[in-house]
Amino acid sequence: MKHYHYTEVTEEDVPAPAEGVKVRWLIKEETGAPNFAMRQFTLTSGGYTPRHTYPWEHEVFIRAGSGTVLGKDGEEPVKPGDVVYMPPDEEHQFRNTGDDDLVFLCLIPHQKK
Amino acid sequence: MKHYHYTEVTEEDVPAPAEGVKVRWLIKEETGAPNFAMRQFTLTSGGYTPRHTYPWEHEVFIRAGSGTVLGKDGEEPVKPGDVVYMPPDEEHQFRNTGDDDLVFLCLIPHQKK
Repeated sequence: MKHYHYTEVTEEDVPAPAEGVKVRWLIKEETGAPNFAMRQFTLTSGGYTPRHTYPWEHEVFIRAGSGTVLGKDGEEPVKPGDVVYMPPDEEHQFRNTGDDDLVFLCLIPHQKK
Repeated sequence: MKHYHYTEVTEEDVPAPAEGVKVRWLIKEETGAPNFAMRQFTLTSGGYTPRHTYPWEHEVFIRAGSGTVLGKDGEEPVKPGDVVYMPPDEEHQFRNTGDDDLVFLCLIPHQKK
C-alpha cells in the first residue's frame, strides 16, 4: 500500500480561466492506480472553477467550506458532507461563496490514452 | 447531476467477520456511475474490518477518528487527511483504535459482471 497525509502531496495552481483554485493529485496513475484518480481541490474565498464539460464522470465529496455547484438544472448550495455525482457531458462549475476555503475531493476515471 | 448529503444515504451494517462497521454507498452503479463506487465506512471504537484481499484496488481518504491500516508491510496509524492507496491483491484491514468513530471514504471500481 501507499500511505501519506494529503499535505505531503504537492499543491498545484489550476490555471485560468479557473480563479483561486489549487489541486493536489492524491492518487494517480503514477501511484499505481489502474482505473481512477483522487484529487483534492481547494478554492479560496471567491474562487471558482471554469464552466466546463468533460466526457467523463466526476465523483465529488465536499470536505470543508461552503459554495455552490452549477449543473444543467441550475446552481445549488454545497456544504461539508455533501456528495455530488456529475455525469459525463454535463456542464458544471464550483464556486466558493463563503469566507473560508472550499475543499472537496473529486475523483475521475483515467483518461484513455 | 445528483447531489445530496451523505446522511441522506442509508447506512447498512457490514456483517461479521467485520465488527462494528457500517457502510453508506454514496455513489454506485444505480446512481449512474459507469466506472467506480464511492462508499463511506464508519467503524465504532474497537471496530475493525476483516483481514481480506480483493482483486481490485481501494482508494481511501480518512475523514475522522484514529486507527490503523494493515498492509503487507505491517500496521500503520491513520489520522484525518490521510490517503491510502491499497493495490489489488494486497491483504488489508482497518481498525479503530480511538474513542471516536473512524470514518473514511473508500472508492473501488465496479465489479465486472
